[in-house]
Amino acid sequence: MATMASLFLKTPTPSPSLPKSPLVHFRAGPGRLTTGPARIRCGLIEPDGGKLVDLVVEAPQRDLRKRQATSLPQIKLSKIDIQWVHVLSEGWASPLKGFMRESEFLQTLHFNSLRLVDDGSIVNMSVPIVLAIDDLCKNNIGDSTSVALVDDKDKPIAILNDIEIYKHNKEERIARTWGTTAPGLPYAEEAITHAGNWLIGGDLEVIEPIKYHDGLDRFRLSPAELRDEFTRRNADAVFAFQLRNPVHNGHALLMTDTRRRLLEMGYKNPVLLLHPLGGHTKADDVPLQWRMKQHEMVLEDGVLDPETTVVSIFPSPMHYAGPTEVQWHAKARINAGANFYIVGRDPAGMGHPLEKRDLYDADHGKKVLSMAPGLERLNILPFKVAAYDKTQNKMAFFDPSRPQDFLFISGTKMRTLAKNKESPPDGFMCPGGWKVLVDYYDSLTPAENGRVPEPVVV
Amino acid sequence: MATMASLFLKTPTPSPSLPKSPLVHFRAGPGRLTTGPARIRCGLIEPDGGKLVDLVVEAPQRDLRKRQATSLPQIKLSKIDIQWVHVLSEGWASPLKGFMRESEFLQTLHFNSLRLVDDGSIVNMSVPIVLAIDDLCKNNIGDSTSVALVDDKDKPIAILNDIEIYKHNKEERIARTWGTTAPGLPYAEEAITHAGNWLIGGDLEVIEPIKYHDGLDRFRLSPAELRDEFTRRNADAVFAFQLRNPVHNGHALLMTDTRRRLLEMGYKNPVLLLHPLGGHTKADDVPLQWRMKQHEMVLEDGVLDPETTVVSIFPSPMHYAGPTEVQWHAKARINAGANFYIVGRDPAGMGHPLEKRDLYDADHGKKVLSMAPGLERLNILPFKVAAYDKTQNKMAFFDPSRPQDFLFISGTKMRTLAKNKESPPDGFMCPGGWKVLVDYYDSLTPAENGRVPEPVVV
Repeated sequence: MATMASLFLKTPTPSPSLPKSPLVHFRAGPGRLTTGPARIRCGLIEPDGGKLVDLVVEAPQRDLRKRQATSLPQIKLSKIDIQWVHVLSEGWASPLKGFMRESEFLQTLHFNSLRLVDDGSIVNMSVPIVLAIDDLCKNNIGDSTSVALVDDKDKPIAILNDIEIYKHNKEERIARTWGTTAPGLPYAEEAITHAGNWLIGGDLEVIEPIKYHDGLDRFRLSPAELRDEFTRRNADAVFAFQLRNPVHNGHALLMTDTRRRLLEMGYKNPVLLLHPLGGHTKADDVPLQWRMKQHEMVLEDGVLDPETTVVSIFPSPMHYAGPTEVQWHAKARINAGANFYIVGRDPAGMGHPLEKRDLYDADHGKKVLSMAPGLERLNILPFKVAAYDKTQNKMAFFDPSRPQDFLFISGTKMRTLAKNKESPPDGFMCPGGWKVLVDYYDSLTPAENGRVPEPVVV
Repeated sequence: MATMASLFLKTPTPSPSLPKSPLVHFRAGPGRLTTGPARIRCGLIEPDGGKLVDLVVEAPQRDLRKRQATSLPQIKLSKIDIQWVHVLSEGWASPLKGFMRESEFLQTLHFNSLRLVDDGSIVNMSVPIVLAIDDLCKNNIGDSTSVALVDDKDKPIAILNDIEIYKHNKEERIARTWGTTAPGLPYAEEAITHAGNWLIGGDLEVIEPIKYHDGLDRFRLSPAELRDEFTRRNADAVFAFQLRNPVHNGHALLMTDTRRRLLEMGYKNPVLLLHPLGGHTKADDVPLQWRMKQHEMVLEDGVLDPETTVVSIFPSPMHYAGPTEVQWHAKARINAGANFYIVGRDPAGMGHPLEKRDLYDADHGKKVLSMAPGLERLNILPFKVAAYDKTQNKMAFFDPSRPQDFLFISGTKMRTLAKNKESPPDGFMCPGGWKVLVDYYDSLTPAENGRVPEPVVV
């Protein structure tokens, strides 16, 4: 039986250089504790399925596809649906080529993985990427084998071919994805509970690259663009840090320390992918625009080295599905070229919607991630706990021999300080980054009557 | 991506003869549609993990273990707990060596499979086999690394060694196993909802073989005994039929027809394992004692050929967890030597506890089973629909070209007829088997006042 100890802190497994034919499929052996010296790869980790999926129609074909779309039955996409089209179009979910058909949906729910028909190999896939339609829409599709996916202004976004329509059992989907059916799960409320009773899968042709025109598109590098960037920088290791919160100096310490450890292992040029999630988040998370401003300040203030850091936006919506979702977060980063993944305490977790407790055990995320099928090639780096060291006036790794010297500043505490325009201890976050946070909370409570905004207690 | 068509109706995959050393581990490639001629194995399918687990203490050691048990902290087992000890002790769950530790529990919930530490290979494991304890019991165990498991009369049944205690998140366990958290799931009500808030895993030493002394122990062959029996009969294919209901002639037709198909494939001596589930079932299922009487009559009446049929009891409790549980039913039969598994419509399904619908899509069981990790070596045979052919006065495979000739007799209809002492159409069930059913329902409504029992409408 698998034991925990054997599954953590894998040392690098060898990975071949990118093969000449991207169709050649590579699977490393299962992750096991290697005690020998680190063996260094000489190319980026291969995408799942051996080839990065790209579903965007070539430029010369786009007008034709647009015209074809107008003659097909139409499905109107929500904002979250369009984010998934974006995710699929750039190959974050490689080798998935469109919204899931039933066989993929069932494998995702039951096994958190897909078996490839070609060679029987396994890739990780833990959250359903599906498109819901209602009875009316299903009737409207009739016998058509293709449908057009349009935005809220009826502009064609994509064509879904060779479609398959199957039942959307929402209760079962929610139960198997979140491990609860309690009302109040943000993603379920937004995208499942009120969605249609059918799911439609098929192969996707996306008419042109998805853009949001919000000033942040320049940060939205596709997996292919990220791979090019890592290659341009001669990265021999890429370590990804997923986040949906402001960066404080504890995070920075962790990222800097990870690079140091990778150098010690023998890598010559480890590059950090600082990868904030950019899709739908719950209402009380700091919005993407403000987080990106904050991340820019952190780089400007020199807390992280721009030479060895790539900041980019991960376009996926957020499920808050804990151990199930952290697998998706890790798997997508393999496709973007990362072979190391930093996993935090309670990744993708949240409070239980009804009970006064965390929805997930704080350790389950890293445990499940470390045992997940299809992620054997990825090196999982568990988060070291950082806290504010009062003796040094800076963030440092927690030393259990002198707990009295450390101050834990939770996300809630941090938000409350920023809302109340108070300052955190010196050295908790760079001043420029902190100012962005204060400005954000300030923007939420406009002082129309000239009064100082009310302190908000979270 | 996997498509349904490629996953069904696998033709036999080659399997090696039993290796000299049972420690040698064999994994066939992933199940794929083979179109060439059937290749015939010359030995029974290997158990999961390469070796059949046997956790029963050798006879000379039993007294010592009994004495040791008296000095250990005690956990009192429920009837269902003892059934799981039985299941584990004989290796139905091979390579599991005891109640699950947390890493196995998490892999079961999230992946329906376990990765073996030795070689990274995958075995199927879809239902948690766990032991719940409450706070008091946990405190009582203290720092002990072993505990004694005792029955309701404090008789030691087993010792659990190298224990690990971890949280029992019941909501998450139920949601991920059943795909619902609706109250009223029979197994959850009986064994989870009111159980303790901790789970205890470890390696099991079972003091002596589990017996029930109910007159049916002779039918409870262990996987090792079944393998011996199949070998004695020179079986070159073993096809398992899981059931928890009386056998009617439609089932018999299916089993006979399966043997015919296996002979056509080139097998010389296919043997049927008719394998009724013997553990805890819900209140309205026909009890094991009556089902066994009914199965005996079916064999006596010559509906099935005793020469090529082995009737035995599968000791597992029933979860009614549909697509999740059918994997367990199939996996356990691999360990008993079966390389073909007949899967019905809606296997291990039941009505939704709250809503007027089936809990699972009737097709999901066979779909999930056909794609399940760790079951690639097993040949899945989907159930052909049999119904009563009025033109022949017998059960026959349904012919969609003349639907008007067929009568579908549901389980509910069958039970209602038997309860009302009415007869089914000639040829639906052998008369001896039918009489057992009528006697069973008769036994439920004793005519103390001399009146004929009331007809019961289900």
